[in-house]
Amino acid sequence: MSIQDGSIVVRAAGKDDVAAVAALIAMGAAAGAPDRAAAEAEARHPAYAEAYERLARSDANHLFVAEKAGRVVGTYQLTILPGIAQRGRTRGKIESVHVDPDLRSSGIGARMMQHAVDTARGLGVGLLELTSDKRRGAAHRFYERLGFARSHEGFKMVLD
Amino acid sequence: MSIQDGSIVVRAAGKDDVAAVAALIAMGAAAGAPDRAAAEAEARHPAYAEAYERLARSDANHLFVAEKAGRVVGTYQLTILPGIAQRGRTRGKIESVHVDPDLRSSGIGARMMQHAVDTARGLGVGLLELTSDKRRGAAHRFYERLGFARSHEGFKMVLD
Repeated sequence: MSIQDGSIVVRAAGKDDVAAVAALIAMGAAAGAPDRAAAEAEARHPAYAEAYERLARSDANHLFVAEKAGRVVGTYQLTILPGIAQRGRTRGKIESVHVDPDLRSSGIGARMMQHAVDTARGLGVGLLELTSDKRRGAAHRFYERLGFARSHEGFKMVLD
Repeated sequence: MSIQDGSIVVRAAGKDDVAAVAALIAMGAAAGAPDRAAAEAEARHPAYAEAYERLARSDANHLFVAEKAGRVVGTYQLTILPGIAQRGRTRGKIESVHVDPDLRSSGIGARMMQHAVDTARGLGVGLLELTSDKRRGAAHRFYERLGFARSHEGFKMVLD
């Protein structure tokens, strides 16, 4: 599915988008984000192409980009999770939502999240969820404006 | 993988465990949890067996039960998620952690979470995560004691 809003198109990411996606993710770090040149250098690491291949092989995972004037300016991932609760309600998990730092607050994030809701509905998702670093107050207000309830605490444990 | 601790065994759930798992999940609702008889009646709904089949068909999803003296007394789900961030670090998501209400605070939850950490490591997970309803203060302290950082806000949107 691709959504077009003015000049913004949200579409499935391909292999050729990986470096742009990895750079957006690097620049979007909650703490210690590198500048654009450093992020683009990091994004050339071969591990990202391998990561994309793993993701593309999984039916449950979908990587999207937002494009504006032919340039990748945003990205997010949607994962579909089966479960037992609520008579087997399917969950959707939104992950790695990032917008180009030069283009924040211009509607790209909202467009991507509308695309996520529509895509999730189309895939039979009954509950859509995401977590956001507690340091990102502006992001929290953004998700609440879109209709997400900030109902849970998010816990993480690094294993490697 | 199965872990045994005193009389508690954690093992993969089979088709015959579905009703017990569904009853534990129903009794574990954060609000308005039914009593045991009502939960067991709910758990007989045919949707749960179908949900188990969908889950069992997915390589990325693992449903476990904790057993004590031959009885299912706990359950959790582990989902493995590929991603691009951090040079393709694999995530593990813990879901639907529930312990029999009569046996809470007896170490079953901790045993299951140790099993989750070990299983996730074995599957190459670099970051393990879960969300917990903001109303569950005791659960939050439990996860922090186990070494999880309460670093994120958890957002949900019901679509159905």
